[in-house]
Amino acid sequence: MFSILRINVATGETKIETSEAVEYLLGGRTLTSRLVSREVPPDCDPLGSRNSLYFCTGPLSGTTVSSANRLSIGAKSPLTGGIKESNAGGIVATRIAQQGLRGIALAGARPADSPWQIVVIGKEKTEMVDGTFLAGLGVYEKSALLTERFGRKAGCITIGPAGESLLLASGIACSDPHGVCSRYAGRGGLGAVLATKRVIAMVVLADGGEEPTYLDQEAFKAGSRKIVKMLQDNPVSSTFTKYGTAAMVDICQALKVLPTGNFRHGVLAGAEKINAQTMYDTIKARGGAGLTQHACMHPCAIQCSNVYPDKDGSLLCSPIEYETMALMGSNLCLTDLDTIARMNRIANDAGVDTLDVGAAIGVAMEAGLASFGDDEAAIRMMEEVRQLTPLGRILGSGCRVAAKVLGVRHAPHVLGQAIPAYEPRGTKGMAMTYLSSPMGADHTFGFTLRDEETPTSKEGKVELSKKFQVIGSRMDAMGMCNFVRYSVQNDMNPLLELLAARFGTRMSGEEFDTIVKETLRIEHQFNADAGITALDHRFSETFYEEAQPETGEKIDITDAESLAARQW
Amino acid sequence: MFSILRINVATGETKIETSEAVEYLLGGRTLTSRLVSREVPPDCDPLGSRNSLYFCTGPLSGTTVSSANRLSIGAKSPLTGGIKESNAGGIVATRIAQQGLRGIALAGARPADSPWQIVVIGKEKTEMVDGTFLAGLGVYEKSALLTERFGRKAGCITIGPAGESLLLASGIACSDPHGVCSRYAGRGGLGAVLATKRVIAMVVLADGGEEPTYLDQEAFKAGSRKIVKMLQDNPVSSTFTKYGTAAMVDICQALKVLPTGNFRHGVLAGAEKINAQTMYDTIKARGGAGLTQHACMHPCAIQCSNVYPDKDGSLLCSPIEYETMALMGSNLCLTDLDTIARMNRIANDAGVDTLDVGAAIGVAMEAGLASFGDDEAAIRMMEEVRQLTPLGRILGSGCRVAAKVLGVRHAPHVLGQAIPAYEPRGTKGMAMTYLSSPMGADHTFGFTLRDEETPTSKEGKVELSKKFQVIGSRMDAMGMCNFVRYSVQNDMNPLLELLAARFGTRMSGEEFDTIVKETLRIEHQFNADAGITALDHRFSETFYEEAQPETGEKIDITDAESLAARQW
Repeated sequence: MFSILRINVATGETKIETSEAVEYLLGGRTLTSRLVSREVPPDCDPLGSRNSLYFCTGPLSGTTVSSANRLSIGAKSPLTGGIKESNAGGIVATRIAQQGLRGIALAGARPADSPWQIVVIGKEKTEMVDGTFLAGLGVYEKSALLTERFGRKAGCITIGPAGESLLLASGIACSDPHGVCSRYAGRGGLGAVLATKRVIAMVVLADGGEEPTYLDQEAFKAGSRKIVKMLQDNPVSSTFTKYGTAAMVDICQALKVLPTGNFRHGVLAGAEKINAQTMYDTIKARGGAGLTQHACMHPCAIQCSNVYPDKDGSLLCSPIEYETMALMGSNLCLTDLDTIARMNRIANDAGVDTLDVGAAIGVAMEAGLASFGDDEAAIRMMEEVRQLTPLGRILGSGCRVAAKVLGVRHAPHVLGQAIPAYEPRGTKGMAMTYLSSPMGADHTFGFTLRDEETPTSKEGKVELSKKFQVIGSRMDAMGMCNFVRYSVQNDMNPLLELLAARFGTRMSGEEFDTIVKETLRIEHQFNADAGITALDHRFSETFYEEAQPETGEKIDITDAESLAARQW
Repeated sequence: MFSILRINVATGETKIETSEAVEYLLGGRTLTSRLVSREVPPDCDPLGSRNSLYFCTGPLSGTTVSSANRLSIGAKSPLTGGIKESNAGGIVATRIAQQGLRGIALAGARPADSPWQIVVIGKEKTEMVDGTFLAGLGVYEKSALLTERFGRKAGCITIGPAGESLLLASGIACSDPHGVCSRYAGRGGLGAVLATKRVIAMVVLADGGEEPTYLDQEAFKAGSRKIVKMLQDNPVSSTFTKYGTAAMVDICQALKVLPTGNFRHGVLAGAEKINAQTMYDTIKARGGAGLTQHACMHPCAIQCSNVYPDKDGSLLCSPIEYETMALMGSNLCLTDLDTIARMNRIANDAGVDTLDVGAAIGVAMEAGLASFGDDEAAIRMMEEVRQLTPLGRILGSGCRVAAKVLGVRHAPHVLGQAIPAYEPRGTKGMAMTYLSSPMGADHTFGFTLRDEETPTSKEGKVELSKKFQVIGSRMDAMGMCNFVRYSVQNDMNPLLELLAARFGTRMSGEEFDTIVKETLRIEHQFNADAGITALDHRFSETFYEEAQPETGEKIDITDAESLAARQW
């Protein structure tokens, strides 16, 4: 039996629900999307009382399996207007598993003027305690206060000032192994959803102590070791171990898909100043708190995270991911890693998605509010986000809204969610994936880039995107880190055998994929019922009309093709 | 044969198209909506090159018939994402008719960095002349420069700084009989559409001299006199003659539907300070330029417009309409007519819709950016709109976008267009009309308020709204002022006989209504093809959840009912 803890924030009622259904077994996005689909009316205001928020772990969370502790957070998204699952690393999923839970559901809402509360979940009880002392503070300060109060080992989630004031690009921050809420479920505005419940933080105490049980412990141990070896042997994930996701800078620059100048270009002059080698060398040279290799969760054999120090060696920001380096770096024509790190830190403190806000700053620069490449202006804009000035609010609303307000037609988003760090005109596989995701533009959803023979051609990309939609969704489906997929994309059995060893659930790869595809069907159906149409699954018109200079390519994908890539 | 002048702004090509089709006979919204439907791809970016803009007169424009010179402007709306017809008084329709035209179509677009042009339409030729000298100026200054250059009798349209920078709530200003561009086709963001064509003004010279021809001049003269008498005898339009639309303040306050405090309430303490009598007395007492009765077009037997003077008797703003008094007055809890007049003047100068921006300021006040009832803060916000500051841009984007950016759930709009001056929970007839309009919330579309026995009940309101949708649409269908409808709503023959006398076209009231209803069908179909769904035809969720305190009413209209009110 698998349990979820249900909390109604309006009434304060809590109850445990148990089920043996396969979605409760798998947890992750398999569970969040089914719960959203069943319980959240698709027509509801995402910021109203009919929306609920779900936090789910996977079936291997809390065990010795590497990279198995992603926390899936699901709800109706205020950013896209559709279903959302956004997941984060950190320790919260582990703590939830250790409380014997597969997930936590927050239903209801409280009036906008009611005091902030903290939901505290412990072995003995769940309670709502006063959270007003956190109001208005940045996420770093909130983190410190939460750690002080609940201990460094507690799994905390919180929101920044951006979430508190319902900004559409606000995320949910989850504590990392050091007790700092720096692991973001950034996408889709889920921070604002939590805020409508007047929950400023949720703490899962470290007193759970629930030990994982196994039907066949030896088999599980062996399987778990096998995963570690696969990750270490895999050329992609082992590259991430050394360089982190920053390894993508050079790859994307070479392919001419490095977002540059508000997604007008795919090549950045000076990209080598922000590439993986430069970051590696900088961190090594500065020493101090700096780490080129760092785990966002335990256990993890990949450790793609990093700790970026300032010139004195003190921690400036952790982690800095490729997506942020592109959206807050190349896309703004910024070639100073320190600038990117400072912006990233402010974003983390404000509690916003670096992608959507980076894209919004790109739009603002195109609108003439600052010049591309102006480091100080970019940092000032982030300060405005942190201070919630009118401009800060525009930027914190993501690039779709920012483009509307600022009069910019070239708005890099699909379904209102900013395009991640792969300029879509240069990679038709990624373009197809962006167009097909029920979550809005999302790179993890179906990462074709490494497998496109001719990235600029749309030939065969419906099938390629669909193939990788399944591959990527398998990881989300059970709370695994996306980077595990490189090791299992041709054979899911190493993971499925772990389920068998732990729970006795024997599932073929085909049976598993049936569940994965059913999740996609459910998600698209929710969106259709929420009023999302085929026309929303498009890029801005400019991507179809204007060629990207470096590749000479436009988007040439038809509605019929993108529809085909959404049909399961 | 009826002619329209087609101009492609990208190529500079112009041509005259002629047709005998009934929509070319009727002009007005009958023609704009058919041309938009046939020529504008519903899926296009409203601010892209595939959108076109149509300016059409009615069949009685340029004749001696009273109130027959509304200018219908049609396009795909950047505010609502659907079809739009917004019409204005003034002299432009007359000048178009005098050029022997039923309308003007602007197709294509020019790059955002190409110089501003003025389209000049005269008897001899149509030309594009340099308009850069107008860039960035307020509408009043633009008006003066246009008059200086093209003469006071020229029919000019222009946009303000808001339109130039693509704000979603920007309107198109048309010259009044004094040569001042103060008659607004305010709704739907059409100013931004004109701006994408890099057309900063369009001038229809007064050299047309085309005299109307009549099949039966005597019958036409008699019919024309009959209309004047009907308007003078009608109790509603004759009240408008004395008090203007301000007469609605007391009516709405008594019915508890006067928008107050961001549409939270329907009754305003101190409403008598901004009612019709106070306005009348103020204008009379101040004298000077002040006029309680004033015509926006010639000829007009109603003359509901006014000229509001400042304390010294100098012109402050003309006209001040009830809708503005509510959205920029009661809705912000402002009870000083001078404040409303100043805000109105700034809005006119900036080139924005007073309704959408008034509603956006209401949202901003609810968000805490200023207090309700703070005159100076409200004027300051309007100055920000005029100066295009970040806050000004938020407000100039209309209340839907402002609410998203400012984190306010109670956003008074339907399809993104602000609710006009009748709080919908207290008048289910108007609520039904707002929900049913293909143009977004619109009071002129189906004005039920005077005919609701029990405004708070939805009983019978599908039928009542549909009845008045037809009655209101008849006026738009042939470029007549909406206030003529009080005289002909039970019998359209007085107007249809004028068509017969002029063109020999005999049309029964039923035949005419068939055309009117077909227009509605076409408009809703365009919207469906543009991705607008049933869920867009709703108020914000709060209107369904929270009762308006004075009436105790919520919106209780179902999707099925609003759908029924949209089916023709």
